[in-house]
Amino acid sequence: MKIIILAVGKTYKGFINQGIEEYLKRLKRYIKVEFKIIPDIKNSKGLSPEQLINKEERLILNAIKTASDIILLDEKGKEHTSIELAQLLQSKMLVGGKELVFVVGGAYGVSDEVKKRISKKIAMSKLTFSHQMIRLIVVEQIYRAMTILKGDPYHHE
Amino acid sequence: MKIIILAVGKTYKGFINQGIEEYLKRLKRYIKVEFKIIPDIKNSKGLSPEQLINKEERLILNAIKTASDIILLDEKGKEHTSIELAQLLQSKMLVGGKELVFVVGGAYGVSDEVKKRISKKIAMSKLTFSHQMIRLIVVEQIYRAMTILKGDPYHHE
Repeated sequence: MKIIILAVGKTYKGFINQGIEEYLKRLKRYIKVEFKIIPDIKNSKGLSPEQLINKEERLILNAIKTASDIILLDEKGKEHTSIELAQLLQSKMLVGGKELVFVVGGAYGVSDEVKKRISKKIAMSKLTFSHQMIRLIVVEQIYRAMTILKGDPYHHE
Repeated sequence: MKIIILAVGKTYKGFINQGIEEYLKRLKRYIKVEFKIIPDIKNSKGLSPEQLINKEERLILNAIKTASDIILLDEKGKEHTSIELAQLLQSKMLVGGKELVFVVGGAYGVSDEVKKRISKKIAMSKLTFSHQMIRLIVVEQIYRAMTILKGDPYHHE
């Protein structure tokens, strides 16, 4: 199985990119993980949050059309412990889907059409994280999940 | 009021340091925030988690002795939304304490003696974050809290 983290808007912060690169490098020995970035909508300043979400919709739907399973990272989703997240990944690997996609929406979330394609909504926290920070957090958690499944020394209970 | 983030063990990851620097810089217009780092215990490889926690104890107690209020970041603590965290900070500022300390324990947590000094335990998530990542997350959340309290455009509900 391959994991894709689909995120809206360029990662412009140097430290976020560096952190992501670090975890992607470490993940190579466990599983294929790839970031797909949907570029920022041009001239978005005059748009309402709703208009922005709708403009992003087509690009997201296009990017997830080959996905076997889609998980949305959403503050209103169910929270998991790191162990539960590892178990979730394991169950997805056992089912044998080819492409598991984690969708990180833009600053205002995703459209209803996108939500219809989602099999599960996961919240990383009750806290709101920036859509930049959340990318770093999700890739660290995928790494943590893989070390848990392999019994490697990274996670302490 | 001054906020101190007290963390155990050096931040060795370049991207974590960079992210922290970025938020500390942005926080300057709102409130004094400072990191205090308790250096790693030397020759800790032969120590059990318990022995390590006890060695760190004296250093932590020493670092928090001037604190007016201490909050422990702990997976077993209560989760807050970013709005609730902002309200908590506001209430601490209204009480007028001089030094609010957030304690980020080492990889294995903190000792019972340290826990006795704590007024509140807060969990950032049900997920386990590395004690490195948690530093970045807490400083971003303090920044977010300040923008919420000032009504500045960073946080979207």
